[in-house]
Amino acid sequence: MVDVAVLMGSESDRAIAHRVSNVLDNSKYSYDVQVISAHRNPVELEEYIKQSDAKVFIAIAGLSAALPGVIASKTGKPVIGVPVSAKMMGLDALLSIAQMPPGVPVASVGVDNGANAAHLAIRILDLIP
Amino acid sequence: MVDVAVLMGSESDRAIAHRVSNVLDNSKYSYDVQVISAHRNPVELEEYIKQSDAKVFIAIAGLSAALPGVIASKTGKPVIGVPVSAKMMGLDALLSIAQMPPGVPVASVGVDNGANAAHLAIRILDLIP
Amino acid sequence: MVDVAVLMGSESDRAIAHRVSNVLDNSKYSYDVQVISAHRNPVELEEYIKQSDAKVFIAIAGLSAALPGVIASKTGKPVIGVPVSAKMMGLDALLSIAQMPPGVPVASVGVDNGANAAHLAIRILDLIP
Amino acid sequence: MVDVAVLMGSESDRAIAHRVSNVLDNSKYSYDVQVISAHRNPVELEEYIKQSDAKVFIAIAGLSAALPGVIASKTGKPVIGVPVSAKMMGLDALLSIAQMPPGVPVASVGVDNGANAAHLAIRILDLIP
Amino acid sequence: MVDVAVLMGSESDRAIAHRVSNVLDNSKYSYDVQVISAHRNPVELEEYIKQSDAKVFIAIAGLSAALPGVIASKTGKPVIGVPVSAKMMGLDALLSIAQMPPGVPVASVGVDNGANAAHLAIRILDLIP
Amino acid sequence: MVDVAVLMGSESDRAIAHRVSNVLDNSKYSYDVQVISAHRNPVELEEYIKQSDAKVFIAIAGLSAALPGVIASKTGKPVIGVPVSAKMMGLDALLSIAQMPPGVPVASVGVDNGANAAHLAIRILDLIP
Amino acid sequence: MVDVAVLMGSESDRAIAHRVSNVLDNSKYSYDVQVISAHRNPVELEEYIKQSDAKVFIAIAGLSAALPGVIASKTGKPVIGVPVSAKMMGLDALLSIAQMPPGVPVASVGVDNGANAAHLAIRILDLIP
Amino acid sequence: MVDVAVLMGSESDRAIAHRVSNVLDNSKYSYDVQVISAHRNPVELEEYIKQSDAKVFIAIAGLSAALPGVIASKTGKPVIGVPVSAKMMGLDALLSIAQMPPGVPVASVGVDNGANAAHLAIRILDLIP
Repeated sequence: MVDVAVLMGSESDRAIAHRVSNVLDNSKYSYDVQVISAHRNPVELEEYIKQSDAKVFIAIAGLSAALPGVIASKTGKPVIGVPVSAKMMGLDALLSIAQMPPGVPVASVGVDNGANAAHLAIRILDLIP
Repeated sequence: MVDVAVLMGSESDRAIAHRVSNVLDNSKYSYDVQVISAHRNPVELEEYIKQSDAKVFIAIAGLSAALPGVIASKTGKPVIGVPVSAKMMGLDALLSIAQMPPGVPVASVGVDNGANAAHLAIRILDLIP
Repeated sequence: MVDVAVLMGSESDRAIAHRVSNVLDNSKYSYDVQVISAHRNPVELEEYIKQSDAKVFIAIAGLSAALPGVIASKTGKPVIGVPVSAKMMGLDALLSIAQMPPGVPVASVGVDNGANAAHLAIRILDLIP
Repeated sequence: MVDVAVLMGSESDRAIAHRVSNVLDNSKYSYDVQVISAHRNPVELEEYIKQSDAKVFIAIAGLSAALPGVIASKTGKPVIGVPVSAKMMGLDALLSIAQMPPGVPVASVGVDNGANAAHLAIRILDLIP
Repeated sequence: MVDVAVLMGSESDRAIAHRVSNVLDNSKYSYDVQVISAHRNPVELEEYIKQSDAKVFIAIAGLSAALPGVIASKTGKPVIGVPVSAKMMGLDALLSIAQMPPGVPVASVGVDNGANAAHLAIRILDLIP
Repeated sequence: MVDVAVLMGSESDRAIAHRVSNVLDNSKYSYDVQVISAHRNPVELEEYIKQSDAKVFIAIAGLSAALPGVIASKTGKPVIGVPVSAKMMGLDALLSIAQMPPGVPVASVGVDNGANAAHLAIRILDLIP
Repeated sequence: MVDVAVLMGSESDRAIAHRVSNVLDNSKYSYDVQVISAHRNPVELEEYIKQSDAKVFIAIAGLSAALPGVIASKTGKPVIGVPVSAKMMGLDALLSIAQMPPGVPVASVGVDNGANAAHLAIRILDLIP
Repeated sequence: MVDVAVLMGSESDRAIAHRVSNVLDNSKYSYDVQVISAHRNPVELEEYIKQSDAKVFIAIAGLSAALPGVIASKTGKPVIGVPVSAKMMGLDALLSIAQMPPGVPVASVGVDNGANAAHLAIRILDLIP
């Protein structure tokens, strides 16, 4: 059982994932970290989401950053997206993550800002008595 | 007592606030709508935040869109920001809302996407038993 | 049996889909047009892709435009993406469609340029004896 | 008693603050340098502004750069903002600082251009007999 | 004798100049409004600046918006620039006005934001006893 | 006889061409690599296209990246363009390659993403029995 | 015999071509106006350039605006490019026209600025005794 | 007597000026190189332009790059502008140089592309018998 599921689209996003876990380590919440690409491992991703009992998902991705949106389309839990500056200063990832269609919400934080994804998750989890 | 506090920076953001309330009206959650500018009414804003028992804040703002960030600096609750396309296609507001410094998280949704702010708030509130 | 599957993410992309069909109508190739959102109808999308015998997929989408990439991750056929200028002049959709991770290719044409998606599909189909 | 209050949002903005002080050191005007974040230290910021007798404020900040705008909302003195290129070449900070709502003016200088903030402050102070 | 000199680069900037004068009309400060292009009337511009006793200059310009910078290079008084959205949402004018070289400061306000130029001028003039 | 013609606009694009050939080397398809600039060697380019029996063209180019479009105007085969980040993070090349006029289609992949150009070519070639 | 050859890539660029001819009509220089697409009519374009005795070429184009660059690669005469705001505020066309590789120069004027293309041509022609 | 006057706005533009002179050294045309800022040395600039018998001006500048436009407003000769990537990848300089108001033309080449400025000057000079 974990409170937060932290997924990254590629092993190259690991440094940003560390910024997430560094903040969560100083909280009372547990978490699980996985590397699963929305585009390259769609089946594994779907299975992970289905079996996970995480209350909040954090999805880290660069480029066309589909990971947060795909997760949000397959769970009813809050999904936080972290755009990574792999190319184009992260503008591509930021727009891919923030500009979701109505009905499938993703909470975008700033480019490479794994810390704020964790802080936002903590604020959400703190609402649960 | 309300579940969601919906604040907009200017009366001109009203159309986007309606997109928020349209979605919340179809949920079981209550909400309160206010027009308070972070820049022009800082004292009223601070008082509103202090006295509010809302579990989630939705802040709608265009231009240099400081409202979500200021709220996030004065509450420990989750804050959702909606960038408004008042100028520059909303790119100014999106960057102002998303690019928060580490430690003060704001959950940005897409430009003018009030519906997703409400959907995100509902996902968060649904976590509370 | 169809040669081209034309999918759009939202009913609001219909005008761009017409530009695709207008060009295909003047070719010898058959096509099928569907409205299926990658984010809102992930199960229907997966089923459609599995059962389709289309040789080429054309995916039309605005905003964070995940449709082409999701299709490309679930088929081995060529996928052509058409970014729609729903917001931000289509820059969000163009970056979402073009900036795919290595291994999951999408062929992006220009913003709102449904005609070129059809022309590209025809060039590809013409290779088949 | 100081002529110019120089505030930066984060210790990482120190190099730009030096560009401000280097120019002011060659003028007849006195100044005070502080690190106070608009988002992380809102109370300290408010107290500093209230007790300060500075005639001009220079606020240095990157990312969503709220510092200049918050100061301008709490003082009637001229406020000069210096956008810092922490991310996105400083475009995020430039738009956050320049695109203020009518009624709460901030004078933006160029990205990382602490020198011009000081030169502008000197031109303003030179008007006082 | 005037307190503020309001210059615009082209007759097409008149609507923005009205936003400046609307605010100044409600202040105690006098002003003078002129249409003089930095590029098309360089001699008239130089003569106007030399003979003017204005304490603050407001320069309104679109496109490659050279007017504020040229004025700042020919006077030691504070110069406020207002970028106009004639093309490219005003991004061209904003960058032209804000990105001045060190030593020649211009105070940029937001795109089309004539009101804030006036408010900033008033804050500066209020410093004079 | 080759399956894929890989052209780059300049010797400086060689690293991106290697990403193409690395993927093609692991496929059953043959290819030919050439350095021919659309702007500096228009005659050689035309001759190469005419004599080539390649089924798919991959064109790699930075800056105003005309190579893919020029090839597409002189062949009826599918043309894949790879924008190179020589300047401006590759935004110039991406727009030059993607924004083709209706009737002359180019399939753009992501910035510097030679691998996806090869993967896309393989998907196209796999359609041929 | 003409002094200036004015070419546009598409009939939809006609309004910008009128801005060119309006200025040239008030000069002593003759001109010829043609609609020839670099991408759709490459052969006609090449023939036109070869047979033309124009001293200066003005090429008007939107989108991936290859026309000016292609002309510059086939003539040794000065080529002036006018980017048209068909999409993306003309940013695509401006970058396509300005960012030419070393050795094949194009003189870019501003977006939709046909008048300046004519004025620049006149300045060049005035050098000829 | 010189054919080309090469001016740069700052000593830091020297590397780009070398790209201009490298190309001109291989031509039959003479040139003169100067460092004169439009903003910091307006009087020297005016005098230099007046006394110069150059047939073509090349102006190299970064940031808000006013130099080419100011020269174009004070001479009737063709002026070529070279935007320098001092900040923001040169986008600020490119827009400042290209987006001139009608009547004051500047020929912009690509970012940092001093070579093309020289090649364009040579094409212009070659028209003179």
